[in-house]
Amino acid sequence: MAVIDVDGDLVERYVSELARYGAHGETGVWRTVYSSEWVASQDQVAAWYADAGLDVRRDAVGNVWGRLAGGGPAVVSGSHVDSQTPGGRYDGALGVIGALVAVRALQEQFGPPRRPLEAVSLCEEEASRFHATNFWGSRAIIGAIRAGETEAIRDADGVPIGEAMRSVGLDPAEIPSAERDDIAHWVELHIEQGPVLEEAGLPVGIVDAITAIRHYVVRLVGRSDHAGARPMNGRLDPLAGFAEIATAVIGVALDAGPPAVTTIGHVQVEPNLPSAVPDSVTFTLDSRHPDPEAVAAQHARQEELMREIAERRGLHISWHVPLDLPPAPCHPDVVAALERAARDQQVPYRRMHSGAGHDTQNIAQRAKVAMVFARSKDGRSHTPAEFTSVDDAVAAIRVLAGALHELAY
Amino acid sequence: MAVIDVDGDLVERYVSELARYGAHGETGVWRTVYSSEWVASQDQVAAWYADAGLDVRRDAVGNVWGRLAGGGPAVVSGSHVDSQTPGGRYDGALGVIGALVAVRALQEQFGPPRRPLEAVSLCEEEASRFHATNFWGSRAIIGAIRAGETEAIRDADGVPIGEAMRSVGLDPAEIPSAERDDIAHWVELHIEQGPVLEEAGLPVGIVDAITAIRHYVVRLVGRSDHAGARPMNGRLDPLAGFAEIATAVIGVALDAGPPAVTTIGHVQVEPNLPSAVPDSVTFTLDSRHPDPEAVAAQHARQEELMREIAERRGLHISWHVPLDLPPAPCHPDVVAALERAARDQQVPYRRMHSGAGHDTQNIAQRAKVAMVFARSKDGRSHTPAEFTSVDDAVAAIRVLAGALHELAY
Repeated sequence: MAVIDVDGDLVERYVSELARYGAHGETGVWRTVYSSEWVASQDQVAAWYADAGLDVRRDAVGNVWGRLAGGGPAVVSGSHVDSQTPGGRYDGALGVIGALVAVRALQEQFGPPRRPLEAVSLCEEEASRFHATNFWGSRAIIGAIRAGETEAIRDADGVPIGEAMRSVGLDPAEIPSAERDDIAHWVELHIEQGPVLEEAGLPVGIVDAITAIRHYVVRLVGRSDHAGARPMNGRLDPLAGFAEIATAVIGVALDAGPPAVTTIGHVQVEPNLPSAVPDSVTFTLDSRHPDPEAVAAQHARQEELMREIAERRGLHISWHVPLDLPPAPCHPDVVAALERAARDQQVPYRRMHSGAGHDTQNIAQRAKVAMVFARSKDGRSHTPAEFTSVDDAVAAIRVLAGALHELAY
Repeated sequence: MAVIDVDGDLVERYVSELARYGAHGETGVWRTVYSSEWVASQDQVAAWYADAGLDVRRDAVGNVWGRLAGGGPAVVSGSHVDSQTPGGRYDGALGVIGALVAVRALQEQFGPPRRPLEAVSLCEEEASRFHATNFWGSRAIIGAIRAGETEAIRDADGVPIGEAMRSVGLDPAEIPSAERDDIAHWVELHIEQGPVLEEAGLPVGIVDAITAIRHYVVRLVGRSDHAGARPMNGRLDPLAGFAEIATAVIGVALDAGPPAVTTIGHVQVEPNLPSAVPDSVTFTLDSRHPDPEAVAAQHARQEELMREIAERRGLHISWHVPLDLPPAPCHPDVVAALERAARDQQVPYRRMHSGAGHDTQNIAQRAKVAMVFARSKDGRSHTPAEFTSVDDAVAAIRVLAGALHELAY
């Protein structure tokens, strides 16, 4: 296997140019799906695909595809260009650019592929505009968007996602046409978004599993009382109950040790007045583990603790689960191809799991998948401060390109 | 001492009629200071004063006074008609009505008083529109409104309280004229707002001290991280720190036992996203005790715990204290007058402290003060559900009237 030559200057130029669309401050981007900034960035990607000699196609939800022809099922790599609000210029974007640069380099150095080789810029991953989309672009590809979702899923202004699609020239009725059953292999390049590679001193991670993610929305109801006139011993204080529950459920992940994680990121107190015992506390519980058995035990223990604490305190507790993604093991064949590529390209790496969710976990239902991570400075993401060096990006793209070469040539 | 006759039907009629101004739902009121509903209710009180034969006067901040002439310094009773948003029809209003009914009954049954005897409806107590007013009406009476406050104190729409005063015909420049130095004795009747009397099976409480109240606004800053990609052991999670602090500071009041109370009523999480470790948690801590030494120890212990927990977790903590009311002991002479009145009128009572703040604690700087509490159903207040029976209201008014008789006749 020859060393694959990846042009760092080109990577840097693509990153800078894409970051102009929805630029936010010095280094950030604010680019939500179906906004004008998002349309402009997908148009830019399409132009780059065409410039690299790929056949360009847009599907019904706005995923942009670039293809080198070949026989049999396709080998695909890609990620997304939508961002957090604000986000940085690497999350998603580096995977779109990485796929383009890798396919372009392979074509230049090895000519046309044996199999169809595609790059894709998916239409929505962050759910930063439509919180309930749950990976809209990859759900379209696997045919998992259900009837009614185009009306039911709305942004903070109440705009249904179907209307947002129409506003950029996409027809919601055509969504079923975006389904693909001809993808054999899928590799997504992404920034790590955590500190594991930095702490290990490695530029690249090869992902062998994507974590399970469950979100609970928990509502704890007590009784509002005057903060002075109601003695402590007669209170039904949901805030005190919340504090005990938060410590307990976070403690479950601490006790289990890595890779278990648990986060309470959203809290809403009613009536939220300084001099009133609250009536209710609503909070989210984000609980993750990449192992199917371990995550089931983790959720069961956390639910047991929440019920036990609420009952002991006389509080009413209820919850629903708006997000419940099973763990997605990556395919050993694709992981092995990536590891061979890393060794061939002499890129130091480690195997690891992904603690973040990705479109790849949906594609895993239809194709053999894996991911490549590039090191994130300070483990930051979902912020304008996120950063990945050109050297680390090039290292990850070379590993990606090596695996795509093995699979498609 | 003859039994003082108080007309329950009149009390009930006054309560119902006053509740029409700013009526909210079946039983509530929504009546913020300097609103049209508030102006209408003060006009109604003024009309009732006049109807009862009192000389009516409005001062510079909108307190409405009704006076029976007499010699020497005055004996005064009153409370407020502004409400929570929404509040009930008893908090404040029953004290305004009680003072009016008591003075009216005394005049009818005993003729003109020896000393000036006054009823007052204060202009602002709840701080439900202007959060920083800190008892505007009684602060005007004791000359404690500072230069600049009429511009600095603003409502949620940014309207300065001085502008709100002008909009109802009051001139902020005249505030100093509201000061009184001729009040000898002050008694405020109020609903209890807690469950103590109900649990004791008593209609009336005689208040011998008003609690100290301190509000801390605490800001706990950590580092926002991805909820999946950042392992637990490298996190600086201000929500986990907040949970430990909440349990600890509430625990200080639980360990101390009654009458210590501590409440966390307001919490704000940033960025408040389900999949992000928060960057910061800002919360209020309301800490109360009626004893000067005990409350100082309570605050010191709570501050020590907050600092210790934040430091151990690598979180930055800071706070400010927007409200710090010292405990206000009631005057033994007035408490004794109320106790004699309760015995004379054969009204069962207990002595107790007030866990809520009241205008009376300001007036205590200028006059000998005490308070009478009427039983609250289920200990509720600051809600349309608050309720005090006519019988309990009459019992409290008879105790009030008995004490006013002793002090003014």
